[in-house]
Amino acid sequence: MSLGGKVAIIGSGVIKYGENFHQSLTDMIYEAVTLALADAKIERGRLEAAWLGCYEPMLYGFEGNSGTFVSDPLNLFPIPVTRVAAYCATGIEAVRNAALAVASGEYDVVLAVGAEKMREVPSRGSLVAQAVNRGHPVLAKGRTAPGMFALVATRYFKEYGADEEALCAIAMKNHHHGSLNPKAHFQKEITPEQYRKAPKVAEPLGLFDCCPTTDGAAAVVLTRADLASKLTDRWSVIRGVAYAVTAGYWNTQFDPSWSFTSFRATREAAKAAYRMAGITNPAKEIKVAECHDCFTITEIVNYEDLGLAEPGAGWRWATSGVTRLGGDLPVNTSGGLKSCGHPIGSSGVRMIANVHDQLLGRAGRMQVKDATMGLAHNLGGPGAVSAVAVLSQP
Amino acid sequence: MSLGGKVAIIGSGVIKYGENFHQSLTDMIYEAVTLALADAKIERGRLEAAWLGCYEPMLYGFEGNSGTFVSDPLNLFPIPVTRVAAYCATGIEAVRNAALAVASGEYDVVLAVGAEKMREVPSRGSLVAQAVNRGHPVLAKGRTAPGMFALVATRYFKEYGADEEALCAIAMKNHHHGSLNPKAHFQKEITPEQYRKAPKVAEPLGLFDCCPTTDGAAAVVLTRADLASKLTDRWSVIRGVAYAVTAGYWNTQFDPSWSFTSFRATREAAKAAYRMAGITNPAKEIKVAECHDCFTITEIVNYEDLGLAEPGAGWRWATSGVTRLGGDLPVNTSGGLKSCGHPIGSSGVRMIANVHDQLLGRAGRMQVKDATMGLAHNLGGPGAVSAVAVLSQP
Repeated sequence: MSLGGKVAIIGSGVIKYGENFHQSLTDMIYEAVTLALADAKIERGRLEAAWLGCYEPMLYGFEGNSGTFVSDPLNLFPIPVTRVAAYCATGIEAVRNAALAVASGEYDVVLAVGAEKMREVPSRGSLVAQAVNRGHPVLAKGRTAPGMFALVATRYFKEYGADEEALCAIAMKNHHHGSLNPKAHFQKEITPEQYRKAPKVAEPLGLFDCCPTTDGAAAVVLTRADLASKLTDRWSVIRGVAYAVTAGYWNTQFDPSWSFTSFRATREAAKAAYRMAGITNPAKEIKVAECHDCFTITEIVNYEDLGLAEPGAGWRWATSGVTRLGGDLPVNTSGGLKSCGHPIGSSGVRMIANVHDQLLGRAGRMQVKDATMGLAHNLGGPGAVSAVAVLSQP
Repeated sequence: MSLGGKVAIIGSGVIKYGENFHQSLTDMIYEAVTLALADAKIERGRLEAAWLGCYEPMLYGFEGNSGTFVSDPLNLFPIPVTRVAAYCATGIEAVRNAALAVASGEYDVVLAVGAEKMREVPSRGSLVAQAVNRGHPVLAKGRTAPGMFALVATRYFKEYGADEEALCAIAMKNHHHGSLNPKAHFQKEITPEQYRKAPKVAEPLGLFDCCPTTDGAAAVVLTRADLASKLTDRWSVIRGVAYAVTAGYWNTQFDPSWSFTSFRATREAAKAAYRMAGITNPAKEIKVAECHDCFTITEIVNYEDLGLAEPGAGWRWATSGVTRLGGDLPVNTSGGLKSCGHPIGSSGVRMIANVHDQLLGRAGRMQVKDATMGLAHNLGGPGAVSAVAVLSQP
């Protein structure tokens, strides 16, 4: 007995991502959940339990450190709302725990919501600044996220003969996809000239290699797969969902196999999710994917770690258009973190909602033909954590 | 199909609670998990997943906001470690999510660990101080935890004719029990004179009405009930575990039924846990309990909200010795939060470990005769959240 195939998604909601100064964290959650419930065509009273993925409600949002601020605006009392936090994989972790609870048989209809308020805190109050100020062992050495992923790009270039053209191709692709997504933070194309002229953030990564800082929320409604047809006429099925914690931290002290060109966390999470889903050839079986493009180089490495491209071949997928809409395996058709932004707790739930839309054939101008099975992926916590969800049509 | 009865506890570990300046958060987790694994007589390699209850790893412990710091010292890579946060109910929430995952059939052997490092942060950096500084809507009005529970005591006295003698009885009982517990922060009896002469914190609550600020960690190992006998010869069974989120905040704006003498969150969590466990007469069926005595008045109100005593009768249970070791229904035989302290994420797991010990007949001088079924309870988040776990002998 396993989770794979036992849980269905019957509704999803994603709010407009961006600088949502007009909305509190609670406002965003209210909107996302309301959209998801309307999509599922169920009343909030049907919900029996909920999971909230929110990375830093206190630091960014001035909210409490629990799930109460999901219940308060929606009057969900007294159902349980569990708050989970797992660095940048927080969103899929919320869905995973919700799916395990549904699979246990304890609850029939549950909610998973991800949200993060990031724009209202000035730079000095930001997560990274606080971590550096407090002497975080990694960040205090100047190894911020762009700095660490710059090392990945540099090493990848050296190992596999790639160069900035591959990164530019990812940036242009994801900005193109974002231009088709009315929920994305940025909805505009960029040119190669803009990419090349942009200021460097951490050599070789420039402004258009980095995802922005964004407010956002997303929600999905889950039920048992054997109940889905009684509740709705359109649903997708969670074939597998896994989360892996490994040694990260960009050095070989914790993990002798650390290579700078591959993340064990993603490999392990994908392996576990594919096992649950019965997938043996992901490159052939997965038809659409949302993967963690916090930086352009990350997306290229993810192609390989997810078993979609051979090691060292990911950058050619970028330059040859394999993963662009119309290509063989479109990736980040939403625009990815690059265009949507990365409100930490929200991202994984938003990705699952986007894949769900693809499977239901309702992705609009982002629609991929014959999208029968899709994947969502997060990487986080200095390369230490990753989550992968595999969804399919019923 | 439901969670109740499907999950067993096969090992537990609790570290010495106190001012553990010699231990980091990671050190405490390492020790608690090592004790629990040794007790379960299994290798760490048998663990397939883990849940961490930790309320504020960044604020108090300078650790990351995920479960990675469980994996790092124990080399648990690559299994998933989910971090949950639920105010003062964080510990039982970790066990609840672990139990749901086991009940789903996805994992056979999992870990739930609770930990909190609270003594190393000076008062101005404490959780309450930060919340007040940042304008928390409740705390900024001076309604700190002692201030809020003082209102409960005052109202309870007026409604039911109790007085400070009932609070003194709870303080003396829990300090007596703590004197028998080698893991407690405080292990000494107090006298009525000490109680009366103690400085007031928030009238009518004095120093001995308030639990201390403490470092601690606890862990339990869970498996499916039908696998327990293959792994060990001593285990207990989780008959029910529930978590409720309600309106709290000490006013009638959010909850018109707010009374100051009862917490809906506890009533709802108990109702759900008893339903899972098939309990219809808790006062008769529950033989030993650990309940949330953050303040002495809280324990009295809990007797009533948990359905053990009639409304208004809880204070007489305190003064007549019903809940003292040797009484009809001993409560907080560990010494409770009053003597153990309340390292937030750890408390619920420690309580479950204590009840487990009672069911296995290994509680030493704290042992309750014929302890066939027991209960652990947390209340938190300005009265808004509560968790209840019911355990029994196999």
